[in-house]
Amino acid sequence: MYRIGIDVGGTNIAAGLVEDEFRIFSKKSIKTEEASSPTEMIEAISTLVKELMQGGSIDTADIEAIGVGVPGTAEPESGKVLYANNLGFEDVPFLNEIKEALGKELADKTYFDNDANAAAIGEYITGGYDAENFMMVTLGTGVGGGIIINGKVVRGCNYAAAEFGHMTINIDGCDCNCGRKGCFEDYASATALMEQAFEAMNGPGGRDSILWERAKTLDDLTGEIFFDAVRKRDALAQKVLETYVYYLSEGLTNLINILQPQVLVLSGGITRAADLFLDKVKENVSKSVYSRNSSRNTEITVARGIEDAGDVGIIGAALIDKM
Amino acid sequence: MYRIGIDVGGTNIAAGLVEDEFRIFSKKSIKTEEASSPTEMIEAISTLVKELMQGGSIDTADIEAIGVGVPGTAEPESGKVLYANNLGFEDVPFLNEIKEALGKELADKTYFDNDANAAAIGEYITGGYDAENFMMVTLGTGVGGGIIINGKVVRGCNYAAAEFGHMTINIDGCDCNCGRKGCFEDYASATALMEQAFEAMNGPGGRDSILWERAKTLDDLTGEIFFDAVRKRDALAQKVLETYVYYLSEGLTNLINILQPQVLVLSGGITRAADLFLDKVKENVSKSVYSRNSSRNTEITVARGIEDAGDVGIIGAALIDKM
Repeated sequence: MYRIGIDVGGTNIAAGLVEDEFRIFSKKSIKTEEASSPTEMIEAISTLVKELMQGGSIDTADIEAIGVGVPGTAEPESGKVLYANNLGFEDVPFLNEIKEALGKELADKTYFDNDANAAAIGEYITGGYDAENFMMVTLGTGVGGGIIINGKVVRGCNYAAAEFGHMTINIDGCDCNCGRKGCFEDYASATALMEQAFEAMNGPGGRDSILWERAKTLDDLTGEIFFDAVRKRDALAQKVLETYVYYLSEGLTNLINILQPQVLVLSGGITRAADLFLDKVKENVSKSVYSRNSSRNTEITVARGIEDAGDVGIIGAALIDKM
Repeated sequence: MYRIGIDVGGTNIAAGLVEDEFRIFSKKSIKTEEASSPTEMIEAISTLVKELMQGGSIDTADIEAIGVGVPGTAEPESGKVLYANNLGFEDVPFLNEIKEALGKELADKTYFDNDANAAAIGEYITGGYDAENFMMVTLGTGVGGGIIINGKVVRGCNYAAAEFGHMTINIDGCDCNCGRKGCFEDYASATALMEQAFEAMNGPGGRDSILWERAKTLDDLTGEIFFDAVRKRDALAQKVLETYVYYLSEGLTNLINILQPQVLVLSGGITRAADLFLDKVKENVSKSVYSRNSSRNTEITVARGIEDAGDVGIIGAALIDKM
């Protein structure tokens, strides 16, 4: 049996035919800007599905499930995308129209969900976690993620739960784009880390840093350059990372005090350099978490389920029906 | 059928025989200091249960369930109280020994849980909430509570989930007794409100306040005096409440952004004066919550399930087996 996952992103709509053992047999994608209206996007998704099936000589009976991950609030009951800021969608009967476009036989096995939930489902299943309660915290442009409790995704009353990034940790802190102050993502997203590094590069001693040798603008500064400098024991980069890890740890401690998942998985591109900071995060959290005297505390780890980060969205979407 | 709930507190061990419709038929209690060792406490609980049954002429067959709420971490699998700071318990095989003391017929229907979880279960069931995901936030000496997701209590990997009070909202803020800084309960507990009021009484204009007329020490200052001053439009008390409500709202917004429960219930003695602040809390949260454009946001309300606050612990404990 096969599954098909479609990851609707702001840049690409990527679809993949997923074999048993969560291997991607084939992939296809188009630019999101080429199918930006709901009608065009539904048409495009239907075409991608059909092309993948034809390419693999696969029949509708061989398909176990089709899942679509959407960057917005997906309401399973109505099949509507209530709101997707990056796509400009509001109240679009997305799932029902995809089902219609795919035809009756596939319609009954087609599902959708928010993309962060899909990613959490993908990591949970492919990573084989033995954890009733599970949380994935994704460090990217912002900080998002997913929560799984008793084997079910917690979608929330608006299908927008797990907005971890918008937990204030510094009520008198900097302005967040959400309108509040001092939100977790303003300190702990990958973007925030780059900003913190760039600020340090322009502060005392910044010009002596390896970072400045390799990047002169915030745009030029990448995670790779940053972590490379840390590996080379660049003092400025090390100091920036230490402060970043402090904030990250404090936010994670909050989340653990609230939900105490068995496992908290960090994901996002910067976790490729987790060897440089994961131990320190664990140490910080173990010192500040409320139940610090216990031997059964939350295990903090990095995503392990899907090797290629580009496949997380596809495989997660392909598994949506499982939760 | 009847249920028996036992609420083990720092001051009293209170037990009640609970009829259908969650009415308490009879109550008995003893001082905790009279039964402070695990052995004495187990003996006392067993005696209370037997006295309640005898008093009501009730047979073991008439008992549907017995529940014990403990102020600490209760591990259902082992029946152990892993840790209860106020009782000085560590790793006590509490439930198993209670079962033994009660005898075989009652043992199979005897349960225990953390007292905050028991209170949340009690409110959830007696309040008749139509909410898959539910959160109770208790404003007392600290800030605690319980989380119910898909009809089950979220106990957490250490049975100490829902430590809402120990979520930092001000990473550079005041020292918390948990070792961190700026925790939610340092701003939003009932104790914090009294401290904030007392500080204001000793600040500019404080001596002109009604509060100062009625209380000269922090010990003398009660919630009743405070809210009475607010009702009388005392400017200082109003200002203190406004700031308190701001912090409370920010912490609640964090919790909603993370879990998006259908219902968030506030409980604790000060919610008796909720008419003076609940609307403002709702207004603040609706302005700062992440999914603010949605029509289906979390409903914020105050506990309604059990009329007498003193009965919450007993009735909650009596219903532990339901979740």
